[in-house]
Amino acid sequence: MMNFREELTIGLVQQHNTASLEANRRRSEAGIRDCVARGAQVVALSELHGSLYFCQTEDVRQFELAEPVPGPSTQFFGALAAELQVVLVCSLFERRAAGLYHNTAVVFDRDGRIAGKYRKMHIPDDPAFYEKFYFTPGDLGYTPVPTSAGNIGVLVCWDQWFPEAARLMAMNGADLLLYPTAIGWDMTEPADERRRQLDAWHTIQRAHAIANGIPVAAINRVGMEAAPAETDGSGIHFWGGSFVCGQQGEMLAEAPTDAEQNIVVTVDLARTETVRRIWPFFRDRRADSYAALTQKFGK
Amino acid sequence: MMNFREELTIGLVQQHNTASLEANRRRSEAGIRDCVARGAQVVALSELHGSLYFCQTEDVRQFELAEPVPGPSTQFFGALAAELQVVLVCSLFERRAAGLYHNTAVVFDRDGRIAGKYRKMHIPDDPAFYEKFYFTPGDLGYTPVPTSAGNIGVLVCWDQWFPEAARLMAMNGADLLLYPTAIGWDMTEPADERRRQLDAWHTIQRAHAIANGIPVAAINRVGMEAAPAETDGSGIHFWGGSFVCGQQGEMLAEAPTDAEQNIVVTVDLARTETVRRIWPFFRDRRADSYAALTQKFGK
Repeated sequence: MMNFREELTIGLVQQHNTASLEANRRRSEAGIRDCVARGAQVVALSELHGSLYFCQTEDVRQFELAEPVPGPSTQFFGALAAELQVVLVCSLFERRAAGLYHNTAVVFDRDGRIAGKYRKMHIPDDPAFYEKFYFTPGDLGYTPVPTSAGNIGVLVCWDQWFPEAARLMAMNGADLLLYPTAIGWDMTEPADERRRQLDAWHTIQRAHAIANGIPVAAINRVGMEAAPAETDGSGIHFWGGSFVCGQQGEMLAEAPTDAEQNIVVTVDLARTETVRRIWPFFRDRRADSYAALTQKFGK
Repeated sequence: MMNFREELTIGLVQQHNTASLEANRRRSEAGIRDCVARGAQVVALSELHGSLYFCQTEDVRQFELAEPVPGPSTQFFGALAAELQVVLVCSLFERRAAGLYHNTAVVFDRDGRIAGKYRKMHIPDDPAFYEKFYFTPGDLGYTPVPTSAGNIGVLVCWDQWFPEAARLMAMNGADLLLYPTAIGWDMTEPADERRRQLDAWHTIQRAHAIANGIPVAAINRVGMEAAPAETDGSGIHFWGGSFVCGQQGEMLAEAPTDAEQNIVVTVDLARTETVRRIWPFFRDRRADSYAALTQKFGK
């Protein structure tokens, strides 16, 4: 058994967003400062935390929200990371070129420099989540970002439903998985369906921790965002429920479904070695039999 | 939305085993008859239900338990399936040739004929679970068995920790996943560790249901089996906890951790279509980015 600990303290800013970009940024900053004051070495924000969740409609004017990387947002958050000496995980609408946009997470090291970025690989498209209109699927693959706080395996929202993404990030050396997220309920659906959805969301991510023997953190936005006037949608109640679980999928902390909260949790990265020794899934993967995973389906 | 139902009633025989092969078989038969009397159309037994779990030690004499397929066990259970007109999933120690053995599940259709078999692909090897000594890893891949009750995606025990196996079985058309299992606690481990292990076992399998939008059933053995005298092991307390969950991973029924029980549960296979429409993971899998899954690791 390993007898040392390698502690990492993670802060998650579960935030409610408004139409004011300036207010959203101030709210993010306050959350980051709070997490750092409470000892966080890595702080993560929710998906597209700079604005309302604009994908409730397909509207070309929303592309005005996009910005380059590096750009104004990375300048602001990079400076904040440097000031606070914290590893920071942000999410933004990346303008890569005219007509080419991504849903991108940017990781800053504690010196404020961009340590790396991840472009969301799996793009959803459902009523009120029209992301395929806005985001080209990522082309950077599943590469953890090396930082002074470890290799951060950043994946984004819809990615969390795909065990393949978690596995590849772990195989590429992630010390933990971290999912900026924007997921919520259509409140016109019945309560039992809403409960199943939230539970499934926790369950499948906890399973990524188990399958790969690494901690998982997910940071979701929270609260109601009304549907744009031109749509017939009923809006989205983002369900919060941000959490951190350990290497066996055990819940370490969980935020409420109906309120902002910053959660600060310490995980023991050295426990990955212990857990993978008793559950040696990487030893036994039948990689020789997985070729068909590169197909869309079996027929 | 789909507005028809396609109900399938599943019976699971959570059984305690003894040194008497004859008593074990009688116990299995009684469990099968009970499940059928309660309406089960498919009944499944636990892993290697014919004997004690002999892999607690490496002992060449244990190969005497192996038998060919078809052979005496398949004759017995095939006749029972035909008599009861039920689809039956059994598990046995298959002797394929001298020096070549597998951990094999056999599926009988309701006419008693062997509908297909599955040879356990992922073989564990841990203290008290010395399976690599006995079983050659399977070479039949992840092919569901077509029966009059649907395409049964049979996987066995250790397979349940590998999302790849569940995914491939689903991609090959499984209507449900079914895991004969023999998993338990080393009671010298602390209670919190035992609780995490059981919870992780449920969680990762529920996640296979969620990721693939199909029901999952696991049938485990239950109760204490002492370590063989020649070992220094502490025996295994098989933890039961057999369960059936629906397409969103929601628990439909769960057996106790300390007693035999037959559980009979109806799932709605038509709901797979509904759930996969709201959670279209197969639409969005980035199969183009999964090639590295066929590697052992990323370095």
